[in-house]
Amino acid sequence: MTNSGTIVACCQIALQIGDRAGNRAKIHAAVSRAADGGAQVIVLPELANTGYMFSSPQELHALAEPVDGPTIAGWQQLAEQRKVIIVGGFAENGHDGKIYNSAVIVDETGLRATYRKAHLWDGEKLGLFTAGSDSPPVVDTAVGPIGLVICYDLEFPEWVRHVAEAGAALLCAPVNWPLYPRPAGERPSEIVRAQAAASSNRIFVAIADRAGTERDQAWLGGSVIIDPDGYPTTTLRLDEETIIYATLNLPEATDKSISAGNDVHKDRRPDLYT
Amino acid sequence: MTNSGTIVACCQIALQIGDRAGNRAKIHAAVSRAADGGAQVIVLPELANTGYMFSSPQELHALAEPVDGPTIAGWQQLAEQRKVIIVGGFAENGHDGKIYNSAVIVDETGLRATYRKAHLWDGEKLGLFTAGSDSPPVVDTAVGPIGLVICYDLEFPEWVRHVAEAGAALLCAPVNWPLYPRPAGERPSEIVRAQAAASSNRIFVAIADRAGTERDQAWLGGSVIIDPDGYPTTTLRLDEETIIYATLNLPEATDKSISAGNDVHKDRRPDLYT
Repeated sequence: MTNSGTIVACCQIALQIGDRAGNRAKIHAAVSRAADGGAQVIVLPELANTGYMFSSPQELHALAEPVDGPTIAGWQQLAEQRKVIIVGGFAENGHDGKIYNSAVIVDETGLRATYRKAHLWDGEKLGLFTAGSDSPPVVDTAVGPIGLVICYDLEFPEWVRHVAEAGAALLCAPVNWPLYPRPAGERPSEIVRAQAAASSNRIFVAIADRAGTERDQAWLGGSVIIDPDGYPTTTLRLDEETIIYATLNLPEATDKSISAGNDVHKDRRPDLYT
Repeated sequence: MTNSGTIVACCQIALQIGDRAGNRAKIHAAVSRAADGGAQVIVLPELANTGYMFSSPQELHALAEPVDGPTIAGWQQLAEQRKVIIVGGFAENGHDGKIYNSAVIVDETGLRATYRKAHLWDGEKLGLFTAGSDSPPVVDTAVGPIGLVICYDLEFPEWVRHVAEAGAALLCAPVNWPLYPRPAGERPSEIVRAQAAASSNRIFVAIADRAGTERDQAWLGGSVIIDPDGYPTTTLRLDEETIIYATLNLPEATDKSISAGNDVHKDRRPDLYT
């Protein structure tokens, strides 16, 4: 950690479905560039090993890898070489024979956490992925506690609350946000919900989205890094391939107060929420 | 209900602390004007009978009224005369001897619900108000099911979820939002969280805020009516006295789907949230 904070980067990249080696090379290049740029935490999109628009469960099954496969091994190697923390998504061929929409946190010491998306989106449910049922992880890293959820998970305030109450200062979210129409001048509603997730819990949120178009599906390219007040610290560069950076004072997220008498966590009334 | 939907109005007014008769007259004028403008649901700010910046518990106690006092009796009379639904906040002197930050829903048939704020803000906790412990109401009105929370309540996604799952199509929120600094070009974060509350539950949200300054406290004037996609349907008129209107297709809020395979309520994993 530098004196001025922790440098976080989100890699907004285009991927080619089916081209595992090409995707690995693309990620390697993006992570290297982010590390050259000083990043200490580097976030990658959802399903970064495979792409997203599978034409069939068979195609997904053929592309998915175990967590000890070449993609995550490559990220571990990069993390060790560059002394960075990498958070990214991948299609997981589980040792239980099931296919998961998963993500990992790796650092220079190796694999720190694997998480399986609990809230599956649309066609993901139709024979593609098995939903995870474990809580999202919070890993105590060299820069502070990092939490992890995947894409649609982020839209469930209950899930974000769980990660925040478990102590995450920075919540990383690999996503693949489809491009939807929205009113002129308005931010994408996915980003609005992420802003609320940050400020309702006074945590930092770092989101890495996809760029480009894949099998006729255009991606939003909504990568953003949000502060505990709920405001973006980065400029939206919708639909470009880019790396966004922010320098974050992560210990700020341990203070949940918003006025002399208010604290966004202590003010909860959990006895009434049942 | 007109063919084109339900007309909802939020009255963003300035109040004078201590001037109960003046506040009643001001509200009467605003409700009458909103009804003249075609409003079928009229939302008033929090603590509309008293103002907010009490100098002492004694001052509050002297100003608070029972739910069968002149303020709510006046609203019932207005609702009956104008055939409108009025949702607004008031300082309640409870029949149990306690003082609550409360709000009501009244319609032409009389008092439909009283609710006591469960999440108290800052100094409200310091000898002023007793926190409510009942769930927020959802009232089946002539225009559809209307829910009610008060100001800081709205910032707890658990509380909004409760109202939405209980069937509210329109969530009305009387508020008194203090004016805080924010980054240039950004919406007030209270509004961002309200946008997320709406879209996370696919409900309409109608917020009536205060205008003006009271005992050195400037109010935001952030009244807004938000659609189930989470976008404002009204133009922000920060810090002006004004009435904002929107025509809402309330039955739209019964459809919680956001894609062929997704539903913001059915996709929850409540078994995992405990």
